[in-house]
Amino acid sequence: MACPYQVCEWRSPEDLTKLLDLELGEAGQAPAQTLQHCRDAIHYSVKTNHPHFFNQLYVGLDHYAMVGSFVTDATQPSLYTYEMAPVHCLIEKVVLEKMMEMIGWVEGGDGIFNPGGSMSNMYAMNLARFQRFPEVKEQGLSACPRLVLFTSEECHYSVAKAAAFLGIGTKNVYVVPADQRFADFHTEYGRITEYKILQGRTVPFMVSATAGTTVLGSFDPIEELADVCEEHNLWLHVDACWGGAALLSNKHKHLLKGVQRAHSVAWNPHKMLMAGQQCSAFLVRDKTGLLQRCHSACASYLFQKDKFYDISCDTGDKSIQCGRKADAFRFWLMWKALGTRELERRVDHALEMARYLTEGIKKRDGFRLLMEPEYTNVCFWYIPPSMRKIPDSPEFWQKVAPKIKERMMKTGSMMVGYQSHGINANFFRMIIISPWVSTKDMDFVLDEIHRLGADL
Amino acid sequence: MACPYQVCEWRSPEDLTKLLDLELGEAGQAPAQTLQHCRDAIHYSVKTNHPHFFNQLYVGLDHYAMVGSFVTDATQPSLYTYEMAPVHCLIEKVVLEKMMEMIGWVEGGDGIFNPGGSMSNMYAMNLARFQRFPEVKEQGLSACPRLVLFTSEECHYSVAKAAAFLGIGTKNVYVVPADQRFADFHTEYGRITEYKILQGRTVPFMVSATAGTTVLGSFDPIEELADVCEEHNLWLHVDACWGGAALLSNKHKHLLKGVQRAHSVAWNPHKMLMAGQQCSAFLVRDKTGLLQRCHSACASYLFQKDKFYDISCDTGDKSIQCGRKADAFRFWLMWKALGTRELERRVDHALEMARYLTEGIKKRDGFRLLMEPEYTNVCFWYIPPSMRKIPDSPEFWQKVAPKIKERMMKTGSMMVGYQSHGINANFFRMIIISPWVSTKDMDFVLDEIHRLGADL
Repeated sequence: MACPYQVCEWRSPEDLTKLLDLELGEAGQAPAQTLQHCRDAIHYSVKTNHPHFFNQLYVGLDHYAMVGSFVTDATQPSLYTYEMAPVHCLIEKVVLEKMMEMIGWVEGGDGIFNPGGSMSNMYAMNLARFQRFPEVKEQGLSACPRLVLFTSEECHYSVAKAAAFLGIGTKNVYVVPADQRFADFHTEYGRITEYKILQGRTVPFMVSATAGTTVLGSFDPIEELADVCEEHNLWLHVDACWGGAALLSNKHKHLLKGVQRAHSVAWNPHKMLMAGQQCSAFLVRDKTGLLQRCHSACASYLFQKDKFYDISCDTGDKSIQCGRKADAFRFWLMWKALGTRELERRVDHALEMARYLTEGIKKRDGFRLLMEPEYTNVCFWYIPPSMRKIPDSPEFWQKVAPKIKERMMKTGSMMVGYQSHGINANFFRMIIISPWVSTKDMDFVLDEIHRLGADL
Repeated sequence: MACPYQVCEWRSPEDLTKLLDLELGEAGQAPAQTLQHCRDAIHYSVKTNHPHFFNQLYVGLDHYAMVGSFVTDATQPSLYTYEMAPVHCLIEKVVLEKMMEMIGWVEGGDGIFNPGGSMSNMYAMNLARFQRFPEVKEQGLSACPRLVLFTSEECHYSVAKAAAFLGIGTKNVYVVPADQRFADFHTEYGRITEYKILQGRTVPFMVSATAGTTVLGSFDPIEELADVCEEHNLWLHVDACWGGAALLSNKHKHLLKGVQRAHSVAWNPHKMLMAGQQCSAFLVRDKTGLLQRCHSACASYLFQKDKFYDISCDTGDKSIQCGRKADAFRFWLMWKALGTRELERRVDHALEMARYLTEGIKKRDGFRLLMEPEYTNVCFWYIPPSMRKIPDSPEFWQKVAPKIKERMMKTGSMMVGYQSHGINANFFRMIIISPWVSTKDMDFVLDEIHRLGADL
């Protein structure tokens, strides 16, 4: 897809500070000046909707979703109560129900939209410990044994952040090596259980699985994990923030096989489905009001008991927030406009493009695939001609990706991320999302990387 | 200010569900249908920008802020890194610095925009305990003594939610009676300290003061609390989400006297300053990188150390979120457009209107003031003629406000909140914010309450 403008127009922090007129003063200014600020902000921002933006687990947003965001920006609903946000309380409920249907919770469940996947993972952790130790809400962790949880080393970093924030501690997150894809879980669990008996004060309470990991786009084996969790009475959370969209595809939903057995699921429609940030759902299979009991504070000025309507519509006390944006509306509006079939087609298209790119990498000299992609993360190295004759020496490649990235940013031709990861030296991670990219764009990416790095 | 439309057009949840076409289907729909959904969403939403909306601690948003939100919606920046959001990383920094200047932190500090005041209060609590017990991040609370904190009974309910969420426990929040305005603090502190010595395992670590309480709009005596905190080595957090705007007014900033001595401050420009939800700053006086050390997880795919620019601009790892909206931009844009003086004038105007309304309440038959307002929360009872001859019997008044509120919602003439509070039966809480309301609107409120309730 040809595009008349660059993905970004790079300026260093020092230069951009000079270009933008940032200072806030005593006097106001003419409207023309304010418009100029808007133009500048747009001009120097990354064009996340650009067809050659492949840098993050989201790209821009769908056009209908954008219209939806203008509506909620202008009307400023806040989802404490039905009285304050009648339309949006109902819409949030419908969207959550539809997402639960996709997960396969035939009896329904509960849920809440919140500011992001990291928050959803926190909700899961808090709910899992509250369900096991309800006294934690009032007494705190000082009344509980030491709690530990399991995840894979490929999990999102928010699992560690959540453990720190919730007072559990990052060292109480037991990280199972990902190359074993949780095959080690029984061994690891045995080790912890033994430790628990020795210490008498450690209780495993949760497994946090990932459906669509951040770097590699891989999927934990949910079915096997559900078996283990049932056996050992552990809460199973599935972080499907990125991979959840595969549930919309009949062809690819097998990636999340067994997800209906999870106790909770995090799923962000602002990622693969382009619903615009922030659009992030936390879903719970429980139907007994656990979410509300865990988080409620019963503020007298919002959740009066003597209201004239059904107060079960006042969902705000399920949340750890007070004011809360109407994030579900954009997603609902685009889903209405496009229909489930078009969402499915988009997911399938993104996976097809990832497949096409993968084959291109395999065919071209100087490109090397890190692993066969399961989703739309395509991870690979580029080896410049000068290094191709050296026997496999990843340490030589370490500096290649950062250098190409620098040139990429400075020409503004595209954006693709890179990172070192475990024992693997810096490699590129392409993320494909947009329904508007074609095989030509995939070819462009490989051509452009070669163009930028051939002389290194 | 006359307005050609109602604040709300009330429909019960059942009726509204029928009116809106909520179901999500396989097929998409024609654009005209999507536009109709937008019209319906606007039509049945509460008009938070309406001059007679006085229901929450925010009203709609400023026009420049709305333009700002359209810009960020369309461009979808996410503030992990400078590379991804160059304009917005710089703008967030400038806005935080300006807010710190208003607080009086002449040496600057640190901070982060986040999804709301409840989150800011959580940040404060996490930072306070990390500063005292850095091992909590890795080891969790099981490695710490039992931590307790102090607040007043008028504090926002998010303090309790935060204590539950962070694993501290709601019972470890010691609530000082508000009528003593923290005068009791020394006694209470003495009691806890004694308890601590007895138990050997309890450590007070924080005082959470409030500048502008949710119901009454009152201000804790920050200067006195700062003395106590210094004496006992406690972190002083000031929840100024609502009252922070007074710092812009030379006439009213005395309400927050001593705020520069706080270790952290929460301040939401989306409340009194109408910057649009969510616009919520958490500010810290520390300049040693405490915020970053407390929350960092150093994700390899975002915070690479081998970047080609100054990575101190990558602020994302200070946050407990991953993707993060550009919430500061709207506020920056409106501040640029209006200037500090206009923001000050708006704050002064809101407080003048609150003063005018208070005098009106005092003059009119059947209205009774709960207390002299310190800010723009005006709390009062309406006593219908039939109850005026009964000697003071608040239990009779308990049903008046809910009934008037029901009629108010069903006519859509205005929105004002009510609650019972402590020993006080249901009373109205008027919140005045908009720079476009006049004395006529204040008169209207009292006339309308009388019109709606005179027959009760």
